[in-house]
Amino acid sequence: MGYTDTDKLAINTIRVLAADATFHANSGHPGAPMGMAPIAHVLFNRFMRFNPKNPKWINRDRFVLSNGHGCMLQYALLHLYGYAVSMDDLKAFRTVDSITPGHPESHDTPGVEVTTGPLGQGISNAVGLALAQAHTSAVFNKPGYDLIDNYTYCFLGDGCLMEGVSSEACSLAGHLQLGNLIAIWDDNHITIDGDTNQAFTEDVLKRYESYGWHVLTVEDGDHDLEGMEAAIKKAQEVKDKPTLIQLKTIIGFGSKQQGTHGVHGSPLKADDIKQLKEKFGFNPEQSFVVPQEVYDLCNKVSAAGAAKEEEWNKLFAKYAEQYKAEHDDLVRRQKGDLPEGWEKHLPTYTPADAAVASRKLSETVLNKIFDVIPELVGGSADLTGSNLTRWKGAIDFQPPSTGLGDYSGRYIRFGVREHGMGAILNGMAAYGTVLPYGGTFLNFVSYAAGAVRLSALSQERVIWVATHDSIGLGEDGPTHQPIETLAHFRALPNCMVWRPADGNETSAAYYVALISKHTPSIIALSRQNLPQLEGSVIDKATKGGYVLHEQPGADITLVATGSEVCICIDAVKELAEKHNIKARVVSMPCFEVFDTQSKEYRLSVLPDGIPSLSVEVMSTMGWERYTHEQFGLNRFGASGAYKDVYKKFEFTPEGVAKRAVATVNFWKDVPNIRSPINRAFQQLI
Amino acid sequence: MGYTDTDKLAINTIRVLAADATFHANSGHPGAPMGMAPIAHVLFNRFMRFNPKNPKWINRDRFVLSNGHGCMLQYALLHLYGYAVSMDDLKAFRTVDSITPGHPESHDTPGVEVTTGPLGQGISNAVGLALAQAHTSAVFNKPGYDLIDNYTYCFLGDGCLMEGVSSEACSLAGHLQLGNLIAIWDDNHITIDGDTNQAFTEDVLKRYESYGWHVLTVEDGDHDLEGMEAAIKKAQEVKDKPTLIQLKTIIGFGSKQQGTHGVHGSPLKADDIKQLKEKFGFNPEQSFVVPQEVYDLCNKVSAAGAAKEEEWNKLFAKYAEQYKAEHDDLVRRQKGDLPEGWEKHLPTYTPADAAVASRKLSETVLNKIFDVIPELVGGSADLTGSNLTRWKGAIDFQPPSTGLGDYSGRYIRFGVREHGMGAILNGMAAYGTVLPYGGTFLNFVSYAAGAVRLSALSQERVIWVATHDSIGLGEDGPTHQPIETLAHFRALPNCMVWRPADGNETSAAYYVALISKHTPSIIALSRQNLPQLEGSVIDKATKGGYVLHEQPGADITLVATGSEVCICIDAVKELAEKHNIKARVVSMPCFEVFDTQSKEYRLSVLPDGIPSLSVEVMSTMGWERYTHEQFGLNRFGASGAYKDVYKKFEFTPEGVAKRAVATVNFWKDVPNIRSPINRAFQQLI
Repeated sequence: MGYTDTDKLAINTIRVLAADATFHANSGHPGAPMGMAPIAHVLFNRFMRFNPKNPKWINRDRFVLSNGHGCMLQYALLHLYGYAVSMDDLKAFRTVDSITPGHPESHDTPGVEVTTGPLGQGISNAVGLALAQAHTSAVFNKPGYDLIDNYTYCFLGDGCLMEGVSSEACSLAGHLQLGNLIAIWDDNHITIDGDTNQAFTEDVLKRYESYGWHVLTVEDGDHDLEGMEAAIKKAQEVKDKPTLIQLKTIIGFGSKQQGTHGVHGSPLKADDIKQLKEKFGFNPEQSFVVPQEVYDLCNKVSAAGAAKEEEWNKLFAKYAEQYKAEHDDLVRRQKGDLPEGWEKHLPTYTPADAAVASRKLSETVLNKIFDVIPELVGGSADLTGSNLTRWKGAIDFQPPSTGLGDYSGRYIRFGVREHGMGAILNGMAAYGTVLPYGGTFLNFVSYAAGAVRLSALSQERVIWVATHDSIGLGEDGPTHQPIETLAHFRALPNCMVWRPADGNETSAAYYVALISKHTPSIIALSRQNLPQLEGSVIDKATKGGYVLHEQPGADITLVATGSEVCICIDAVKELAEKHNIKARVVSMPCFEVFDTQSKEYRLSVLPDGIPSLSVEVMSTMGWERYTHEQFGLNRFGASGAYKDVYKKFEFTPEGVAKRAVATVNFWKDVPNIRSPINRAFQQLI
Repeated sequence: MGYTDTDKLAINTIRVLAADATFHANSGHPGAPMGMAPIAHVLFNRFMRFNPKNPKWINRDRFVLSNGHGCMLQYALLHLYGYAVSMDDLKAFRTVDSITPGHPESHDTPGVEVTTGPLGQGISNAVGLALAQAHTSAVFNKPGYDLIDNYTYCFLGDGCLMEGVSSEACSLAGHLQLGNLIAIWDDNHITIDGDTNQAFTEDVLKRYESYGWHVLTVEDGDHDLEGMEAAIKKAQEVKDKPTLIQLKTIIGFGSKQQGTHGVHGSPLKADDIKQLKEKFGFNPEQSFVVPQEVYDLCNKVSAAGAAKEEEWNKLFAKYAEQYKAEHDDLVRRQKGDLPEGWEKHLPTYTPADAAVASRKLSETVLNKIFDVIPELVGGSADLTGSNLTRWKGAIDFQPPSTGLGDYSGRYIRFGVREHGMGAILNGMAAYGTVLPYGGTFLNFVSYAAGAVRLSALSQERVIWVATHDSIGLGEDGPTHQPIETLAHFRALPNCMVWRPADGNETSAAYYVALISKHTPSIIALSRQNLPQLEGSVIDKATKGGYVLHEQPGADITLVATGSEVCICIDAVKELAEKHNIKARVVSMPCFEVFDTQSKEYRLSVLPDGIPSLSVEVMSTMGWERYTHEQFGLNRFGASGAYKDVYKKFEFTPEGVAKRAVATVNFWKDVPNIRSPINRAFQQLI
């Protein structure tokens, strides 16, 4: 309450900065920042708890700009409140190598919690942030120590509300009763195509009520600062429901084109900016100006935030005396380090051990490590019994009132919501105290492609337990059998795709996935049983590719992943006995990790002098990078018992041998065969 | 009304067949078929209009099983009502090369309208079917000729309701007031993880009301046949809203495990089937038995359906007399043929023509052909002004009451709903009278990956206008710049990915996309201007790859797509002048089409004897199949003016030349360089 002219000036400063920066960049979206400047001011000036000098303080309130195209709003706020975003950074908006790119990127810009812009992701990340907050507080808070009680605030636009990923995440947020999540919908009736009445006429508040959310409306989001403040207070009071505040605003408020889509995605014209500045009392001859009283107003808030952190640090120090283990655990988690010695719990196998499906081997890993890595929190998109993602004795993450679990529970029932799950996992990872994983069939990781891409771009440690990884799933048929999926995610930068061949390789996949603080992983796992291989060792497998079966004077290298490795081993016998061909076998569970090895090592695995043949029951795309010839499946699969399907497509020792013979014959006249590892030049990275 | 013991017997026959087939296959989902047998009987016996002898009759009612895992329900119905699905086909359930795969596939099985199983797709396809119906009736119906008035019925489960794709599609269906769409929700409270109370506690009916749907409940979906019939009738009476009927059922009705998730995805045990058959009056010693009176009951319906088609054919013949042009148009559309001579309207260009962004060239194509191809119906996911998908003077497809268009309109405002759009396009294509397209940024086609995959699998002619196709989009930055996207969809079987380099190639892309009746296409288009190239000709480009610039005695072949082709042309000069290297240039707008050319042709384009270098500003994955060396971008892009971004990553004539020099040097000692077109063996197709 008690808003003065300085508050109004601060609001108009945001508007003018947004107009200036988009004009200067000749690109960008001024409309949302200008429309949401009032709510942004109310939120940051009266509610948000943060210390700009330590943007990673764990109990800070989280702010997510789900309508990320409006990022000049966020950059302006970060600048005004003293984060390490300078006026020069604002001037560099949307230029190469700036920290103010066209959409907010969390790894680039201090104070940006999650990478947004692809619509629907931010609000879904916010659900993940709120989920992680609820879990972390349940685990660490003690009587007298409300260590973790931050809010997650999220701004979102019509686009975010239309995207299915947000429907999934918000339905789950309602079920989970995430009371500390407060979302504010910029209801400006404008999207790129024009008025929302063209395509978006649903009753949004009713929909969110149906999800179990608390809903509120602020009629005048352009002027009614008191109303906005009251709404956020009301939202905070409701503890067992997330809140959606409908905030009616005029897009591009202050522009001559306000209220139209003309102001959505293009800079204002020069004369429009001129009248804007005059109207708001700014000098139209100057750009990128912040009145000192606005800095002062914001600095007060930042100073108060720093004091709050100081206070919190004292509380945390006292906590350390009484709850040493918990204190140290929370400190450790924030660094992203795993508990010392955790890796000793990874299971190892010998060829004498039974053949087991790698999804089952994955379950064994989870059972062995869940006790040791308390930050491991995850679940499945309604395929628990198929993905085998739940360890024995796990407690579900559920609102206590359901009687099905509690917030300290570490197993999440995501429902049939792959994309929502993916975006929630990103938010959880971004929170900083949990290490999230999610299970579904490999084929349906594609439903979450938008979220996986952002895991990779924003460098979040997220693990996908992707079972039923090939035509080997059998009877469910082509609708469920991945063909293009591995190629897709192998082509995605900063994403590890693992396809382990047996128990030791499954342990290796988890090992690397868990210690890679800045890279997501997809672990592709079989439905069918796989033998424990002679020659497989965790250490070797962590190199991404290694010689499983060496053969002096070999005629050919067979290279495979997952369930095809054991077929290649059998093909070696077939080749020796029936074709007098000596074959060596390379297992290559992870391209991306193999690529990081020295050239010398890579050439020792895929040497010059003999041809190589890859064997993988899906698209051959990408294998040409490693092998001379490729045996794969560049068509859809078939529904039937998995052995019949493998046979139909000749993924048998005989089928591999046939192609190995063709390969040897085809390459026998080529002198000095060069391994594909040799390249004319390095790729840019 | 008036259900007899024979009706009950028919219902129990479906249940027993589902139990038998899943038991026999030792795989599958008996629960949904057993629970939904009553509603299926009511729908097929009392409402559905169809002729099993002509499953393609255009005015048939459409039935979509969105919960496709329950496909034994659909296969049993198809068998009972006399479609070409024999008892032997039921016995072959889930075996290789049967027409009864693990999930329904429309290209495999007569009577299956769309391919379902991946959850959320079927109901979204149903929206597309209903949309196409509304459009087709608006275009072809005349006073006295209600030629097109079919219903689209859809069964769906909890999983389909949880998926975001269905939220998107159903929100749009409500906006579009698709009154002939009737969806029936199998509300059995069970998903794979167990009770829906674990993750899905939203108020579904309220949500659908918020979308503008008409909602109804049938309390006893196991017995109340009259209630089900009354509900469907009521749904039919509401003409301006789609209807969702909540049908409360017991999953696996009749099994000892009924009402539990134990009966969801696993066959019943032998003793359970025994008691089931005894309870329902079947001989427990026999399997796959249909009582004759059940066949008789169903045959009556099928005969009536055949008579209805006969009647319709007469009406259509009369229509031909009065509306010859419309009649012939409707006949033609159903064959998938385009109007004769349409291709003459494709624009052609010479190097004298201005440089234009290929998204703009695409707009020109649409403007030139929209009049000639009246079945072309499409839109954009709220990026009309960016995708340039709307032709001049287009009328929007909108409910007339909105005042924004009418149902004969051919331009669809999809809203920010890429995945929903993709699934709706599939349904539209499956309807049989329209040729659908949809626009979004290439990067966000990934949001719709689940739907694109089903376009390809079910062989639907769907066109994606995918603009902003690379880092060339500039300022929007890495969140919007595709890196992995082309590799992803190139790895997808039966999907054409086009990336034209100029106007003639854009026309070629549309040409092939439009005439390919059984293959979806993604046309990747630039935001930035591209020059009209010397040597580009529509005919050549329709081969997928061709020599754009020949050079006798060349030292290297440069191979590129889209916006990088003109950079390669400039690099030729650079190489000649500064490095004394002769380079030829190949443009390769579509891998998949190039792959179908003769080996002789492909070798003429990518010949033996000299090395080749691909140039494309995204993941190099897949290019190793065509070229010896690859210049690409295996990392995320950058936000900035597009020329700066290209420069940063060295996609300039100099940057290409540098790598071409490295390539020539690296390969100069290799005698008889072999083109990658040469392969040791053929891939299975």
